[in-house]
Amino acid sequence: MKIAIDTLIDAAHVVPIAPVKTTLDQHSIAIEAGRIVAILPTHDAHEQYAPRHCVTLPHHALIPGLINAHSHAAMALMRGLADDLPLMNWLQQRIWPTEAKFVGDEFVYDGTLLACAEMLKSGITCFNDMYFFPEATARASLKAKMRAVLGMIVIEFPSAYAGDADAYLHRGLSTRDEFHGESLLSFCVAPHAPYTVSDASFAKVLTYAEQLGLPIHMHVHETLDEISQSLSQHGVRPIERLSRLGLLGPNLIAVHSVHLTPAEIQLFARHGCQVAHCPTSNLKLASGFAPVADMLEAGVNVALGTDGAASNNRLDLLSEMRLAALIAKGISNRADVVPADQALAMATINAAKMLGLDHDIGTLESGKCADIVAVDLSHISTTPCYDVTSHLVYAAGREHVSHVWVNGELLVDNGVLTGMDEQEIIAKASYWQRTIAKDMPT
Amino acid sequence: MKIAIDTLIDAAHVVPIAPVKTTLDQHSIAIEAGRIVAILPTHDAHEQYAPRHCVTLPHHALIPGLINAHSHAAMALMRGLADDLPLMNWLQQRIWPTEAKFVGDEFVYDGTLLACAEMLKSGITCFNDMYFFPEATARASLKAKMRAVLGMIVIEFPSAYAGDADAYLHRGLSTRDEFHGESLLSFCVAPHAPYTVSDASFAKVLTYAEQLGLPIHMHVHETLDEISQSLSQHGVRPIERLSRLGLLGPNLIAVHSVHLTPAEIQLFARHGCQVAHCPTSNLKLASGFAPVADMLEAGVNVALGTDGAASNNRLDLLSEMRLAALIAKGISNRADVVPADQALAMATINAAKMLGLDHDIGTLESGKCADIVAVDLSHISTTPCYDVTSHLVYAAGREHVSHVWVNGELLVDNGVLTGMDEQEIIAKASYWQRTIAKDMPT
Repeated sequence: MKIAIDTLIDAAHVVPIAPVKTTLDQHSIAIEAGRIVAILPTHDAHEQYAPRHCVTLPHHALIPGLINAHSHAAMALMRGLADDLPLMNWLQQRIWPTEAKFVGDEFVYDGTLLACAEMLKSGITCFNDMYFFPEATARASLKAKMRAVLGMIVIEFPSAYAGDADAYLHRGLSTRDEFHGESLLSFCVAPHAPYTVSDASFAKVLTYAEQLGLPIHMHVHETLDEISQSLSQHGVRPIERLSRLGLLGPNLIAVHSVHLTPAEIQLFARHGCQVAHCPTSNLKLASGFAPVADMLEAGVNVALGTDGAASNNRLDLLSEMRLAALIAKGISNRADVVPADQALAMATINAAKMLGLDHDIGTLESGKCADIVAVDLSHISTTPCYDVTSHLVYAAGREHVSHVWVNGELLVDNGVLTGMDEQEIIAKASYWQRTIAKDMPT
Repeated sequence: MKIAIDTLIDAAHVVPIAPVKTTLDQHSIAIEAGRIVAILPTHDAHEQYAPRHCVTLPHHALIPGLINAHSHAAMALMRGLADDLPLMNWLQQRIWPTEAKFVGDEFVYDGTLLACAEMLKSGITCFNDMYFFPEATARASLKAKMRAVLGMIVIEFPSAYAGDADAYLHRGLSTRDEFHGESLLSFCVAPHAPYTVSDASFAKVLTYAEQLGLPIHMHVHETLDEISQSLSQHGVRPIERLSRLGLLGPNLIAVHSVHLTPAEIQLFARHGCQVAHCPTSNLKLASGFAPVADMLEAGVNVALGTDGAASNNRLDLLSEMRLAALIAKGISNRADVVPADQALAMATINAAKMLGLDHDIGTLESGKCADIVAVDLSHISTTPCYDVTSHLVYAAGREHVSHVWVNGELLVDNGVLTGMDEQEIIAKASYWQRTIAKDMPT
């Protein structure tokens, strides 16, 4: 008697991430009630299971849904607004003025929906976001049926969203209450950066993070400027200041971490701090090269983020994996650092651990949520194929992502979004483009 | 009375490259007998011309066909064969043994056809190749109807292709004679590298290059190892040795040029030497970061190459443009170096100049060959669009390439190759994959 299940996916290859360095050929994934119930040889799968839906992917590799460890999703509306500028000019002359004028609930909802559509089509099933109006980010990600981790942003300067750090924090907490029970959503406390958050606010951030058991999602040591500024204002580098404030711990997601001394890497390792590495953004804004190989060697958990589309300008973790693997080799003069399997781990299980979601996502294993991506390796550009994992990192691109499931639901089917109206999303984005462009300096 | 022409392409945007920093909106390109006869506003175009074919691209940018300044096309059959290894291990333990066993006329033809299919679909219309059996490369590129520059390879060690440097040179020259008159083909002399070519052979290379007016296509200063080796064998760095041998000049295409002193950059600038920059390959093999911003500032002409698919593993100049722009910013700590328009020039006109083909290709101008690529900017991932050139470099990928013409002939139509059988090419590549894999160390 066969067991009835929702879905059976038959694939040429399954790369489960756990165990590491494993590729299972001619395997199937059985899904029931949104979760993986078995991964087994295809022949056996059809003897054991009676699926209501069967998807046959004869040239594809199945991998866990990619997890974007750092995003500002709504900034998709500012994609390419200001390029070839250093971080502080970019922020102060272009991004902040645009945000001050336009950012609100509608902007964030429309921008996040655009970002979700792009991320899903690129094989990203979960994103860790930091932005104003996280309630709008939440609504858009639920509309897209994506998994999202919402930052309760804290920053000292006033915006349309909140007037001061306390107001930010309280508004974030009430958003968390509002979406309580949504299984696709979880929350971080998200102090923007050491240079925009006061010691007093950090004390509150720490209290809430500890009481609620939440990660702290923050930009740290992105540029040399912010380090000099801290030295002159506080007499110490930002990480030393965070250390004195008691913020270093396993719940700290230190985004960027471009400029770290060997002692700071050891400090991160000792406290279990985790790093969201955003290679494209760090290069595009000329912030520098994060010492990824050294961090990994010291035992620091490193995941990958796209950052916002205003500094990337692709929300594409396949590009980030490839870039992270390439620049780590170039900077360390060692072609064997960040090999393909490690790059893939950085975009999946490492990010899941960082977000405290590794019981549910990050690998393909029985019991975990069925967040699954199929990459079609039958293209000219992925032929021949000697090693599936190598191809996923070095040859494949988002153009090869064919199917995406979240919680067992098929959200991308042969490259097409099943539940979102692309033309409507593009029309909304074009409206914002015209509105913002009218206001731009010429 | 309207003028009859072959083709009129109506596009949302034309980025002609010359003049620089120009985007022409709602323009059309008129093509007759394989050449561009006019670029003019679409409204005027339809009043002046009666085209036999009209292609309407309402959301697309037209750019010159991308030119791959350095490839080993046939190595597409070794894509992903050996990753995460440093250059010398990669060459000596994996690539050279595989080549010794399998490379022949059939391997090179099949591999080049695979590479041509990938390159065309990625918007590449011309490639500057260096490999054994260039006659097979020539036949494959003619089959693909792509433009190719064939290296007459010279190397001291024997192969299935030739027994010694003289034999290489003579076989190359007779290939050049064989394909005399093919308008899509031209030739370089291609001494492999200073560490694999003797002084005596370089003297002959120089003679032929000067007599025949050909570029000299050579790997130069790719790794620190090759520099140390030259210091111990010849008492000077390779570039100094090339200088003494009289090889520095405007016809030198110095591939890689990763490790250059400021004096060597000035020497290149003074002699008009040109550089083919291969950022992915240099990082993947941990060779290092070429000082691109410094070279450009000194006035050295720099173009972009993919290198072979065994060290990349994508034949994708849109990726290389993006990577070149990103790492130049990261290495020089300046977000304004290699801005988008310069990256685009490196993949088009700079390469055309390097190959001596800038009278025919590299820009969209009246009189030039109609080698044209359309990039569809109506995707979710290219929305919104504030600046077309920025999008081409930072947001777009080969997944957005929709149409490709060479000499006015449509070779890619809505993403589909018009004149090649993809399934047959993939089947051939799979045959080679099985053959080569059987022979690999486990």
